Amino acid sequence: MAGYKVIFHIDENNKWNLLLRNVSNLINAKNSDQVDIEVLANAEAVKYYDISQDLDTDIESLESLHKKGVKFIACNNALKAYNIKKENIFEFVDVVPAGVLELVVKQNEGYAYIKP
Amino acid sequence: MAGYKVIFHIDENNKWNLLLRNVSNLINAKNSDQVDIEVLANAEAVKYYDISQDLDTDIESLESLHKKGVKFIACNNALKAYNIKKENIFEFVDVVPAGVLELVVKQNEGYAYIKP
Amino acid sequence: MAGYKVIFHIDENNKWNLLLRNVSNLINAKNSDQVDIEVLANAEAVKYYDISQDLDTDIESLESLHKKGVKFIACNNALKAYNIKKENIFEFVDVVPAGVLELVVKQNEGYAYIKP
Repeated sequence: MAGYKVIFHIDENNKWNLLLRNVSNLINAKNSDQVDIEVLANAEAVKYYDISQDLDTDIESLESLHKKGVKFIACNNALKAYNIKKENIFEFVDVVPAGVLELVVKQNEGYAYIKP
Repeated sequence: MAGYKVIFHIDENNKWNLLLRNVSNLINAKNSDQVDIEVLANAEAVKYYDISQDLDTDIESLESLHKKGVKFIACNNALKAYNIKKENIFEFVDVVPAGVLELVVKQNEGYAYIKP
Repeated sequence: MAGYKVIFHIDENNKWNLLLRNVSNLINAKNSDQVDIEVLANAEAVKYYDISQDLDTDIESLESLHKKGVKFIACNNALKAYNIKKENIFEFVDVVPAGVLELVVKQNEGYAYIKP
């Protein structure tokens, strides 16, 4: 077996600290090369990726986890709903057209789903 | 592959607007004939199906999504717990004896799980 | 097919009553020997297992469900974060090193995921 795959789902900004701790704990439990981790933000949670918002974003943790292979994703429907410009979100964040479709596709590919 | 299957889980009334946006976004991303969508409401969230409650239910969206093939389901344990009569819930809502069992059975059949 | 398997995830103490009702409803819907049920608590939700906290823990329900085969699990990262001593948690509670890893491993083994 190749390793574990998991997609974390977040749609509330007040869950980001909890989510980042969850992801760190998972990486500490398994070596990061043994687990594929994706973090999918939709609804208001995409604001956390936007440097121009005043959300106390823990950029250090995001960058550190990204360097360990964690993929951070933003839902484009949500970016549009909150008038967030793509040039304002961190460059290591990927954008997908529809966050919910990403959640479905990944689970279909065998990813576990965790909603902190 | 036949298409995607997903069950949305809701147990809090203040999540309905978010959930309905999620479902709409999914249908706009995939044609509705390529994805089977079920919305399973248990706990207090079943009240949203009851016209006699004063919950600002977005009936138009429910009906429009239903016409596009989305199945809306209510947990009968929850209906009983809140003394909701079946004749008071919208006629396009299906009732299952236990919502949690439906969540397990559907995931077992390959449905993805999303909890907005 | 051998039966259903499901892992319930809880990380907020105010969700325990809802979760325990969910688990009871599932057992009432299927005989308890036809469904493997695990309850995984991480983050603040592990406090509920600690008799020394003042959380109105419904010990009777926990014990009754445990006797019906439900496995209650605590995340050790969370126990450490909240300075909870293992000797203070109920003896029928099992401890895993990382709750999120347990969630991934179980889903990989075919467990359904439910987050009340």
